[in-house]
Amino acid sequence: MAQPSTVIATRVGIVGGGPAGLMLSHLLSSAGIENIVVESRDHETIRTTHRAGILEAGSVALLTDTGVDSRVLTHGDEHAGIDLRFAGESHPLDFKDLVDATVTLYAQNEVFTDLAAARTRDGGDVRFSAEVTEVWDLETATPKFRFTQGGDGDDAGASYEVHADIVVGADGSRSFCRRAVAGEREYRFEYPFAWFGILAEAPKSAPELIYANSPSGFALISQRSESVQRMYFQCDPSENVDDWSEDRIWSELAGRVAGPDGFELKTGPIFDKTVLGFRSFVREPLSHGRLFLVGDAGHTVPPTGAKGLNLALADVKVLFEAIESFCASGSDALLESYSDTALRRVWKAQNFSSWMTSMLHTPPGQDPFVARRALGELDAVVSSRYGRQYLAEAYTGWPHG
Amino acid sequence: MAQPSTVIATRVGIVGGGPAGLMLSHLLSSAGIENIVVESRDHETIRTTHRAGILEAGSVALLTDTGVDSRVLTHGDEHAGIDLRFAGESHPLDFKDLVDATVTLYAQNEVFTDLAAARTRDGGDVRFSAEVTEVWDLETATPKFRFTQGGDGDDAGASYEVHADIVVGADGSRSFCRRAVAGEREYRFEYPFAWFGILAEAPKSAPELIYANSPSGFALISQRSESVQRMYFQCDPSENVDDWSEDRIWSELAGRVAGPDGFELKTGPIFDKTVLGFRSFVREPLSHGRLFLVGDAGHTVPPTGAKGLNLALADVKVLFEAIESFCASGSDALLESYSDTALRRVWKAQNFSSWMTSMLHTPPGQDPFVARRALGELDAVVSSRYGRQYLAEAYTGWPHG
Repeated sequence: MAQPSTVIATRVGIVGGGPAGLMLSHLLSSAGIENIVVESRDHETIRTTHRAGILEAGSVALLTDTGVDSRVLTHGDEHAGIDLRFAGESHPLDFKDLVDATVTLYAQNEVFTDLAAARTRDGGDVRFSAEVTEVWDLETATPKFRFTQGGDGDDAGASYEVHADIVVGADGSRSFCRRAVAGEREYRFEYPFAWFGILAEAPKSAPELIYANSPSGFALISQRSESVQRMYFQCDPSENVDDWSEDRIWSELAGRVAGPDGFELKTGPIFDKTVLGFRSFVREPLSHGRLFLVGDAGHTVPPTGAKGLNLALADVKVLFEAIESFCASGSDALLESYSDTALRRVWKAQNFSSWMTSMLHTPPGQDPFVARRALGELDAVVSSRYGRQYLAEAYTGWPHG
Repeated sequence: MAQPSTVIATRVGIVGGGPAGLMLSHLLSSAGIENIVVESRDHETIRTTHRAGILEAGSVALLTDTGVDSRVLTHGDEHAGIDLRFAGESHPLDFKDLVDATVTLYAQNEVFTDLAAARTRDGGDVRFSAEVTEVWDLETATPKFRFTQGGDGDDAGASYEVHADIVVGADGSRSFCRRAVAGEREYRFEYPFAWFGILAEAPKSAPELIYANSPSGFALISQRSESVQRMYFQCDPSENVDDWSEDRIWSELAGRVAGPDGFELKTGPIFDKTVLGFRSFVREPLSHGRLFLVGDAGHTVPPTGAKGLNLALADVKVLFEAIESFCASGSDALLESYSDTALRRVWKAQNFSSWMTSMLHTPPGQDPFVARRALGELDAVVSSRYGRQYLAEAYTGWPHG
């Protein structure tokens, strides 16, 4: 017979302790709403798993305006534009001038680190290395989940039941919560390419990110610090990083940003190589009774345009306000509209990510008309102030609403 | 032995007497540059072949500012916006407010009629019912073409050779001139649908054009007059108009614009039914020696966004300025850059037409993600002033340049 579980009664049970789950926990605690976060991975694993991040102004504000002691302003790198490069020419987009907004390069694992520190500082209840094994009673007023504490603490191996008013699935793209319930609909789109990503010890090649369309495919020249750079190039999803020598990588990248302007890519030793998958996914609706999905648990975007983390934080903001209203008044009107409200931004972001992807990538065997049309579209965007503003507004983030 | 041809020596020989050819002839004559227009169809056929038209502000200006005695201002219908309708809701775009521009509904055959009248008034040399059978010497300083005069005039059956400094192919999508020379490249794209178009005796259903995205496909509710309306709905390219009763047509159209707002489509007797083909085509370059292609002879766009005639007139403006410069100074610098200059606008328009098409149409068997993303895109556009401006600027026409 199984060991009896200890019951934890709380208002909000959050499954997943990445940036989305921790941000929600932080906001709820700040509003005096009791909650618990249960995360299967250990703190150190998340902290040290490097993941690039480009934060919209609204995402930065969410961290800095709510009392997270974030290093985003001191350690993040504010960018006031990007460079759209095609047909061998650079076309700078000045976000500050176009829409009076900026983005900030700040790695997702740093966002996690800041939020985890804020939760510790404020006495938040966050359980790492804790595996959720069951969710149930989701359509009742007291949804529940069970988890087993892992790790090597005093209660390692102990089993707990969380009884809450609300359960939140913030448990990423393989979400246990999502898979535990049937959605009405799932949308999926697979792209015929992936991104080959590298980290290299090299100086910056340019002050802003370069998004390059080239006949041999997309490349992204990004920055991590004065001496370390992050770059990507479109590759086959089945590409094996071991097949790529440094010389071959630099040659491929240089070819994709080459042009008559003599643009020079700065190179250096490569110390990390990885292939990033590429897909779009949306589950509808984002709620099931008293279970609510946020971030990757409900939707995945391709990395072009860097909307993933921003979308998760936008979900969190909408859901927090709905929970706060529910706790204050007992009205579940905002909880009921959470899915529709969040999905509206999700689909705009899916479109933006997919638009940036189709405009900048050249799938193998692409119809020549479609490839040439993408150059026409890039020209239409950069040659119109409205076009540049439309792109800049989406890139820096629509207002949270 | 063939009858000897009469030689006509002139500066510019224009093959094709549709709006593009006649507009160019008008501009050239106004600048004192001798030219001839040779058109295979007879005047009456072109005048009475109804073809819808939406003129950009720049196209209207080209007619009204150059002394064509056009009825576009008195008989055309100025429109200051369109209605983007999706998910059963209307989203008006106010062009006047967004980009301070309008478009004018004025049928293409009326543009032809006005231009032909202006050419007659000014003593232009326009030969209708005259079939071009050969073009040659295009890479010399005296390109030539041969035509046979048809019709029932005094010189019916006579053969002529035009010897010019410049030959212009303004002879439509099946262009004889284009097919007479090898291009470097041809881009083609076929769409998996067509438009079913009707003319009906009915009052207006709405003041502005309605572009509707619906689960069963695109519809366009357009106007021709207070009592006659033009409407289209996406259909299979193999559709037979005889299979469509009035009831079936109205039911299909009504379903595509239905919504919770109770929008009501006004109906009436249908007196014209046609299926419009749908394709994109671009020949590159638009020149070959001293032959220059304008309008449909060089490129075709799908009807969504109504760029065809506007693009032809934009080509004409660029080519006219190049020819004028050549005749004035002997420099062929602008002639040499004509193709690149014109193609830049062509590809922006190809992109616009293709963008409007993909956003509004639902091909049978379309991937559900792609269909749902199109709704996200429509929402992104209408919910952003920049998005609405970007679309409005393209719809009303980028500045001629």
